[in-house]
Amino acid sequence: MTADAFGDDGGDALRQKVGFAGTPAAFRSLLAGIAAAPEQPGGSADWSVLVGQGLESEALAALEREASRLRRGAIPAGDAPTGRLAALRQAITDLDLAGFVVPRSGQHPGEYLPAQDERLAWLTGFTGSAGTAVVLAETAALFVDGRYTVQAPKQIDPSLWTLCPLTDLPLEAWLARTVPADARIGYDPWLHTAAWVDKMRKALERRGAQLVPVEPNPIDALWTDRPPSPIAPVLPHAEAFAGRAASDKRSLVAEAVASHDADAAVITAPESIAWMLNVRGGDVPFTPLALSRLILHADGTAQWFVDDRKLVPGLHAHLGNQVSVLPETAFGSALDALGQAGKTVLAEPANTAAWTIDRLHRSGAKLRHEADPSARFRCCKTEPELHGARVAHLRDGVAVSRFLAWLSRQDDPALHSENAVADRLMAERKRVQRYRGDSFGTIAATGANAALPHYQAAPDGDVRLEPGSFFLFDSGAQYLDGTTDITRTVAIGTVSPEMRERYTLVLKGHIALATARFPVGTTGIQLDALARQFLWQAGLDYDHGTGHGVGSYLGVHEGSARISKQPGAVALEPGMILSIEPGYYKPGAYGIRIENLVAVRTVPALPGSDRQMLDFETLTLAPIDLTPVEPMLLSPSETAWIDGYHRQVRDALGPELSPEDQAWLNRATAPLETVGG
Amino acid sequence: MTADAFGDDGGDALRQKVGFAGTPAAFRSLLAGIAAAPEQPGGSADWSVLVGQGLESEALAALEREASRLRRGAIPAGDAPTGRLAALRQAITDLDLAGFVVPRSGQHPGEYLPAQDERLAWLTGFTGSAGTAVVLAETAALFVDGRYTVQAPKQIDPSLWTLCPLTDLPLEAWLARTVPADARIGYDPWLHTAAWVDKMRKALERRGAQLVPVEPNPIDALWTDRPPSPIAPVLPHAEAFAGRAASDKRSLVAEAVASHDADAAVITAPESIAWMLNVRGGDVPFTPLALSRLILHADGTAQWFVDDRKLVPGLHAHLGNQVSVLPETAFGSALDALGQAGKTVLAEPANTAAWTIDRLHRSGAKLRHEADPSARFRCCKTEPELHGARVAHLRDGVAVSRFLAWLSRQDDPALHSENAVADRLMAERKRVQRYRGDSFGTIAATGANAALPHYQAAPDGDVRLEPGSFFLFDSGAQYLDGTTDITRTVAIGTVSPEMRERYTLVLKGHIALATARFPVGTTGIQLDALARQFLWQAGLDYDHGTGHGVGSYLGVHEGSARISKQPGAVALEPGMILSIEPGYYKPGAYGIRIENLVAVRTVPALPGSDRQMLDFETLTLAPIDLTPVEPMLLSPSETAWIDGYHRQVRDALGPELSPEDQAWLNRATAPLETVGG
Repeated sequence: MTADAFGDDGGDALRQKVGFAGTPAAFRSLLAGIAAAPEQPGGSADWSVLVGQGLESEALAALEREASRLRRGAIPAGDAPTGRLAALRQAITDLDLAGFVVPRSGQHPGEYLPAQDERLAWLTGFTGSAGTAVVLAETAALFVDGRYTVQAPKQIDPSLWTLCPLTDLPLEAWLARTVPADARIGYDPWLHTAAWVDKMRKALERRGAQLVPVEPNPIDALWTDRPPSPIAPVLPHAEAFAGRAASDKRSLVAEAVASHDADAAVITAPESIAWMLNVRGGDVPFTPLALSRLILHADGTAQWFVDDRKLVPGLHAHLGNQVSVLPETAFGSALDALGQAGKTVLAEPANTAAWTIDRLHRSGAKLRHEADPSARFRCCKTEPELHGARVAHLRDGVAVSRFLAWLSRQDDPALHSENAVADRLMAERKRVQRYRGDSFGTIAATGANAALPHYQAAPDGDVRLEPGSFFLFDSGAQYLDGTTDITRTVAIGTVSPEMRERYTLVLKGHIALATARFPVGTTGIQLDALARQFLWQAGLDYDHGTGHGVGSYLGVHEGSARISKQPGAVALEPGMILSIEPGYYKPGAYGIRIENLVAVRTVPALPGSDRQMLDFETLTLAPIDLTPVEPMLLSPSETAWIDGYHRQVRDALGPELSPEDQAWLNRATAPLETVGG
Repeated sequence: MTADAFGDDGGDALRQKVGFAGTPAAFRSLLAGIAAAPEQPGGSADWSVLVGQGLESEALAALEREASRLRRGAIPAGDAPTGRLAALRQAITDLDLAGFVVPRSGQHPGEYLPAQDERLAWLTGFTGSAGTAVVLAETAALFVDGRYTVQAPKQIDPSLWTLCPLTDLPLEAWLARTVPADARIGYDPWLHTAAWVDKMRKALERRGAQLVPVEPNPIDALWTDRPPSPIAPVLPHAEAFAGRAASDKRSLVAEAVASHDADAAVITAPESIAWMLNVRGGDVPFTPLALSRLILHADGTAQWFVDDRKLVPGLHAHLGNQVSVLPETAFGSALDALGQAGKTVLAEPANTAAWTIDRLHRSGAKLRHEADPSARFRCCKTEPELHGARVAHLRDGVAVSRFLAWLSRQDDPALHSENAVADRLMAERKRVQRYRGDSFGTIAATGANAALPHYQAAPDGDVRLEPGSFFLFDSGAQYLDGTTDITRTVAIGTVSPEMRERYTLVLKGHIALATARFPVGTTGIQLDALARQFLWQAGLDYDHGTGHGVGSYLGVHEGSARISKQPGAVALEPGMILSIEPGYYKPGAYGIRIENLVAVRTVPALPGSDRQMLDFETLTLAPIDLTPVEPMLLSPSETAWIDGYHRQVRDALGPELSPEDQAWLNRATAPLETVGG
């Protein structure tokens, strides 16, 4: 960020107007960091307290104008990458390397990255959420998975980049086959997990080549307008929502650390830190996180490595004196201190940056390789969190139903584009209490677009909803008391018999899983087929998981528990929130997905039962379109589930709706027999 | 075996009568080995060719008398263990050890052991199929799993032995907690896998103690009447049954070895050797194996380490000149030769004796840790093997149906004991072509005994079949063309409404799995819940797997593929044979299990299907008792499956039965509507 962006005086007039006590340079740096954080649709001026408290409205307005100007001036990473590959090649040569790896990942683990970590987009133009570039002297390759084999070729320059679908050849096999035997291949140790480095190093060593850590990342010197680290306010997360004091959480996790005979745990997942400290931030889109790192000691005290300019007034008091706030730059020396004191440290190589694990190794710390000890507590929600989830889903259901009612009134849906419809849905959510933004980018897809499970309409796209098609929308919100995620598929006009049949098979699968009972100890892979069995009978399937964990006003994709074909997930436990989202996708034609969130709960003892069973409580409240249902394909118990669910939806949402919307809801949730075939 | 057992002349008169060319000592050793092999119910005198060919009937009869006498004289390992523990403690002290581990396992991996490997029974009196004893100076502990917590206390001397259920504390945790810090604990490296030793060594080293290999096993010197290695004839397995020449199998597996960049594979699983060489033996009960070891080289040649006295005349010609037959004692030096030649050797520490892995390490061989490369070929049956399975199941179904018809005619089943009924079933199987013995010990259980999934009636037991109870029998046979395994549960008289309901839930689960379709790549853990879902809805479950792999005239429990709650099994592939055997067990009351074998097959392309699906072909042919079925709990498609299956059973078996049995079969397989509730 150059001084120019602040005008001729370097922003000093504004600094004086808002009474900022620090230096002009500190003021510019703070405002640049604020502008580098995503805008919060829920409350735009939250961040002003980071500049000063009790500001006059005129000063506030001037601040907001300045921040907007800075945001508008930011250049998207993926714009105009011409020349960057050549510059990086020169830097690689200067470093005496034969190549360099550029992943789509940031210095902090997580699904969403701050703008400054979009090095892959800066280098290649490719803006997908997953991918890795490898730059060698003669070759430059971009590896993408099946989601991006259509998008990536449109974004990269084919004269520079070779696109490599990961299904053809894994990255390590490609490297081992392509690099010269004595090659030194560089990587940024902040951007790769220790497990990745281990695997890749072995593959290269078999070839006689070497994997070499490079710090700082050579891209950062070339990327002149690279945004600074985001500065979004870090707020307390009320105990009334969290259901457990931060001090209790630290004690709980500290006990788990001690039970592994460790003295401390290194926690680098921002979600775990937000959960453990009962704080929420806004450094990345969609998930209310503060990018930071933490060391939890077995006595329950913590060292939190975070830019303290983010902390709102009063946050130190919220944290208490057992949590030391330290600059991010102090993280390395704190790891050294652990090692020098002969400590045993718990860290997970599969999810922790190689930089951190290497530093611990070099410091002499004894490493205990265990999963993040907070994760198992975090994913089992407290009673207040579950209560929050229920009322958040009620409000979310009101917004979704208002949107569906509006959609049903459009005489000619063909006038509406996917983007316009998605905007309408967001507008309905914004009307709702405690809304803090969307929990992920809305998927609003019609026709053949819906056959791409991860479709994102182009911002300037203009695809219209056509009669005879399915309109699929997958969206969710962050509320202070819970996170939502819902998919509905709506028939626009009359759809074909095949579409009706497959919609019904997906719905049957959803019901089979939603009504399952299962014993304590069951994992998601054991339940996954319940949602697929009817599609399987027809020779069909879907190529994504059936369900993912969901946080509580945290990540919409939360680890540990999941329902999918993949092994290795933990057993389902009471309090976990998961999605149930079977689908079906006919390439080039249409897509179907029906998603509710559910909470795992204990089944009260059944007569004659000889063991403790669990089941799912459905949290999501919104009508499922019945017009494309083939009632003949439903069993009596499936019909009863649909009618019971719709009665619950009607009773809960009806009183919150306008008479017009309520009349629509009554029709949409009428018992199936009266809907007809 | 002392000379006495052969009479005053050391058996020399008999040796001359049969014209045995070797020394008297060789003759006695051969006959002792023959007597140490299990008797073959299918063909008792097969083994005589190992003594001499073309024997007169008088000589044959004398031989058989002598073998019977030797068998009768053998003392079961578990008899009269008093004093043995003290003797072992002395031997341990003499070896400067603090303790010694005695597992229930043999020098060759496998479910069934030759008598000489029953060291655990010899030491403790406990004859269960799984368990481990640990003998320390002050403590002697026997670890058993949940199957044996009732049987073990009845067999061991509680003043000597502490019984430790494995659910309370795993062995390694117990050891790490119990042994002194500097203790040296001995183990026999032939009886434990390398993976076991690795795990246990780490647990002890954390404690400062040591795990020490001890050879020979100190028990063997104390066990004066320990049987010799069994000598059962090794016969060719006809290519017409196997469906693939042994040379082709060796080439196939050798290619897999080469694909792992290995020069050779060490194969110690006798089932893999039997499969690869197209031979069958009889060294252990129930599975037609020859205990031996094999090294397969990447060029397709093999070294087979086997006692050549077992090989029937002509077997060398069957093996061909690419297979060298070597004495068992040459195995170690052959491993040394691999290492000295700098070879890379494929071996699996999880299933290979520590002795073998250690020897390879010491020899300098490079080890490649991979699963037995023959297993994936072996479990996918050839077309002739599948044909054999179908016709073997037809014959087995005839035997089972004759038995069921006989049982239905017993006016007062209370006159019949579990053992008498089991004997009747075996007698029916013996009437059937190509029968070579049972594939495991028949479980014939009534009333509360049936609630023990692994129940074995005491040989002198006299439990009667009572009206109002379920009679459960789980049995199977080895035929030259296939292996069978079937469980039926039969209502004796009128059973309670609860028993009817749960029987029906088990049957529904069986049908759901038997009729499942699933995509290529699906593993058993994904399908397991289909068989449990109805029990789960009622708060019930069963504590065993739903299905195991089955060999082709080989092990009735074959590895790799399974259907269970446990992860880690391989994907189901066309040609695999598996059991489907859901159950329900009410402790102290009754037990239910309904088991068929099925073969995985490719589903012909379905209209509109977009991927390759698999399903199951049911192989087992025998009526399922419908009198305890609650028809109201069945869906129309479930009823249709039962009626269709019974029509198939009736059409296949009817023509093979007597008019009386056929009339019974027609009633037993009548469509459900006509059976009534």
